[in-house]
Amino acid sequence: MIDPRLGGLDATAVEHTLMEAAAAGAAQSLPLFRTPLDVDNKWTVGFDPVTRADRDAETAIREVIARRFPDHGIVGEEWDAKPGDGPFRWIIDPIDGTRAFITGVPVWGTLVGLVHADEAVAGVMLQPFTGEMWIALPGEARYCRGAETTRLGASSVVDLAQAKLTSTSPDLFEGGSGVVQQQWDAVRARALTVRYGLDSYGYCLLASGHVDLVVEAGLKNVDIAPLIPIIENAGAVVTAWDGGPAIDGGNIVAAATPELHAQVLAVLAKSGA
Amino acid sequence: MIDPRLGGLDATAVEHTLMEAAAAGAAQSLPLFRTPLDVDNKWTVGFDPVTRADRDAETAIREVIARRFPDHGIVGEEWDAKPGDGPFRWIIDPIDGTRAFITGVPVWGTLVGLVHADEAVAGVMLQPFTGEMWIALPGEARYCRGAETTRLGASSVVDLAQAKLTSTSPDLFEGGSGVVQQQWDAVRARALTVRYGLDSYGYCLLASGHVDLVVEAGLKNVDIAPLIPIIENAGAVVTAWDGGPAIDGGNIVAAATPELHAQVLAVLAKSGA
Repeated sequence: MIDPRLGGLDATAVEHTLMEAAAAGAAQSLPLFRTPLDVDNKWTVGFDPVTRADRDAETAIREVIARRFPDHGIVGEEWDAKPGDGPFRWIIDPIDGTRAFITGVPVWGTLVGLVHADEAVAGVMLQPFTGEMWIALPGEARYCRGAETTRLGASSVVDLAQAKLTSTSPDLFEGGSGVVQQQWDAVRARALTVRYGLDSYGYCLLASGHVDLVVEAGLKNVDIAPLIPIIENAGAVVTAWDGGPAIDGGNIVAAATPELHAQVLAVLAKSGA
Repeated sequence: MIDPRLGGLDATAVEHTLMEAAAAGAAQSLPLFRTPLDVDNKWTVGFDPVTRADRDAETAIREVIARRFPDHGIVGEEWDAKPGDGPFRWIIDPIDGTRAFITGVPVWGTLVGLVHADEAVAGVMLQPFTGEMWIALPGEARYCRGAETTRLGASSVVDLAQAKLTSTSPDLFEGGSGVVQQQWDAVRARALTVRYGLDSYGYCLLASGHVDLVVEAGLKNVDIAPLIPIIENAGAVVTAWDGGPAIDGGNIVAAATPELHAQVLAVLAKSGA
């Protein structure tokens, strides 16, 4: 069915492309999960694991998208962007959470999203080891595992003092001028509890109502764009720390309710002044 | 078969007790995973989630052990210790990683261990959502998932600069005199990478060769005793930070190789001086 919220694309075709693309990526990455890998060093300083799994998964995902929608643009983590002829761009993070991947923790995910006219309109997160999938299209967001399908819905927590907070790592906030660290410290000190180590899985747990707040810094657009439809169609709110759009990455806050989101933005603004 | 390393108990009976007890606990906890829970507040300050799942799981585990070995002592996280008549004590953490449990992250575990004459001799860790089990008896340690069974084996990493480090939370090291924080900072600064958020799952990934080092502070004996046989029978080394026995908890280091373990102990000693 043609959906104007998808720029006139057929919703079923988009849904199938998301699922097929994520599955094609996972077919490359899952067999290499928990096997010894050559971990290349993308950075000259520090440690950023980029594995063969990452690259092969992205190649497989791009092939699915290019076959289904040959005119669309494609932006991925590992390879150069493919320019498109129109307003559509597919955003890929073949293994979001590569550190989880190389340490054997099943909270990494295959992310694929669709952007139309700079708005994230559909997306999927697949965790193939646990067999979990979060998927969203306009007006709908679902969790699927085996025969189980659940409608996503964020929690009703409105107060930071009652919020379960997650973030990939406290190290995200280090360095720089120290303001970002101050802002993070102000939020986490007021939250009910904080849990690290989740990458995209954290946003999915937010959409499922298990955590109430995700606060992160220094994200790339591929880390967050595919997740925006999942978060928003679960009733939650996601923006940059200054309230601007989340789609380009940077410092991101995702909150279960508008009230909680406003409270966190206020804490960030005050502690960053 | 009677095993002198198990104080003369039958190895098969011990193995079956571990598996039956863990499964009985998981039968209580898994149905409550990712459902809304009343989270009691065990502490007057702060947040320590103790759920109904925790208590019901421990009750079920105790029943299995008491039926199989009525004379043995039982020590758990939730209920008073049951004194035993001899040298045997079973150690239970019904849901290790309750914070993971209440935030929907499938890295919590059901821990059951057997201690003979103050030595941890057998243990199991069961993660029922992913269907993973790590189990160890004298001279053997296995990972089981569905039809898959693998012999456990730690990695061969001998150098901290090449070590993938994990710890439950950076918050473990805060407070106190600051020495523990200094020691932790010294270790993590020298490691290849650090990942947070795993509780007992981290020690299991060490035993499987996916992470190389676990460093934690302030553990209880129930958090670590059931894991010691899994770690040691995978070829890894686990002690307190001062090299003393790990069985009573406290500050713990588990390393893939004796060389790595010695290196970390040296860093801890030097930075704590």
